[in-house]
Amino acid sequence: MRILIVGATGTIGRAVTAALAGRHEVLRAGRRSGELTVDATDPASVQAMFEKAGPLDAVIMTAGGAHVGPLGEMTAEQFRVGLNDKLMGQVNMVLAGQRYLRDGGSFTLTSGVISEHPIKHGVSLMATNRAIEGFAQAAACELPRGLRINVVSPGVLTESMEVYGPYFPGTEPVPAARVALRYELSVEGVETGKIYKIW
Amino acid sequence: MRILIVGATGTIGRAVTAALAGRHEVLRAGRRSGELTVDATDPASVQAMFEKAGPLDAVIMTAGGAHVGPLGEMTAEQFRVGLNDKLMGQVNMVLAGQRYLRDGGSFTLTSGVISEHPIKHGVSLMATNRAIEGFAQAAACELPRGLRINVVSPGVLTESMEVYGPYFPGTEPVPAARVALRYELSVEGVETGKIYKIW
Repeated sequence: MRILIVGATGTIGRAVTAALAGRHEVLRAGRRSGELTVDATDPASVQAMFEKAGPLDAVIMTAGGAHVGPLGEMTAEQFRVGLNDKLMGQVNMVLAGQRYLRDGGSFTLTSGVISEHPIKHGVSLMATNRAIEGFAQAAACELPRGLRINVVSPGVLTESMEVYGPYFPGTEPVPAARVALRYELSVEGVETGKIYKIW
Repeated sequence: MRILIVGATGTIGRAVTAALAGRHEVLRAGRRSGELTVDATDPASVQAMFEKAGPLDAVIMTAGGAHVGPLGEMTAEQFRVGLNDKLMGQVNMVLAGQRYLRDGGSFTLTSGVISEHPIKHGVSLMATNRAIEGFAQAAACELPRGLRINVVSPGVLTESMEVYGPYFPGTEPVPAARVALRYELSVEGVETGKIYKIW
């Protein structure tokens, strides 16, 4: 398969690349690095990236951030960061990509454990993750030509525990290599509209 | 109690007003009508509304729309309508209102059956509704002073079947008066972080 990974330089992106590159052709896209550069929040940039990429069988999105901070001080603008970046970045990729993927191709998006389990200061991330999952489950019912779409919802990574651990009391960390398996399942498997939770 | 209903002129808003007005003081807010006017999508307008409203024990949101249309033709801008209007309208009300509600007060938001069950052309509405629910469940863990927040997820209304019925095959419609009971439960009950589904 010819697979595009957006956000390939992140911890998950690197693990997914390692898992897939052995038996597939992997293209990496990022804001500043990779075979292709793209600003996923800009529909025109996404469109241009697909024009350049050539035929694809799978698109994997592991990029996107959100504002983490106390609800009591949160502004609408801060709340919107997750919608603009993590949500719309992935939505833009699907809205444009549905016209470029080969028949039977797949999209794999990324949400996170803060879709079901709130953390302190995580209201915007929770809304964002939930929206990504809802979007994918609805899109799965409408995508043409046998295109599939799934979401991987990773817990906190073992590799990121030093930084993010304090936000996730009582959470069992997951090695990025195990998380990568779910992306592999989404790309090489047959399901659509699924949320693959791993935490 | 002193209760503010935003979107009081809609079918649900009218039923909620009818259910609560007998034993509470109900203030109605809307874009063009009601005791208070507000553009919920504008944080400054929301802030000004709370300044005018005086002490409140509950805020009920039944307003907000989203774009319904085929995924294959959807633009990012169309997808964003639901985020800007239905989601941010309700989020803005909570971000500002958390500083105005009396201790133990409550927010009741509105999502919809298209949070769990996709309909044709409903990808944006599904993402929007899911985000509203995630936001409320996370906010419930952070709100101060005993403030509560719940979401009512109504099915298609009996009163709206003529217009919306064709979008909801095999769905049992619900009279607005039954939906209104869930808002009453949220306002007068004790729970927080709940999604009251009625469909």
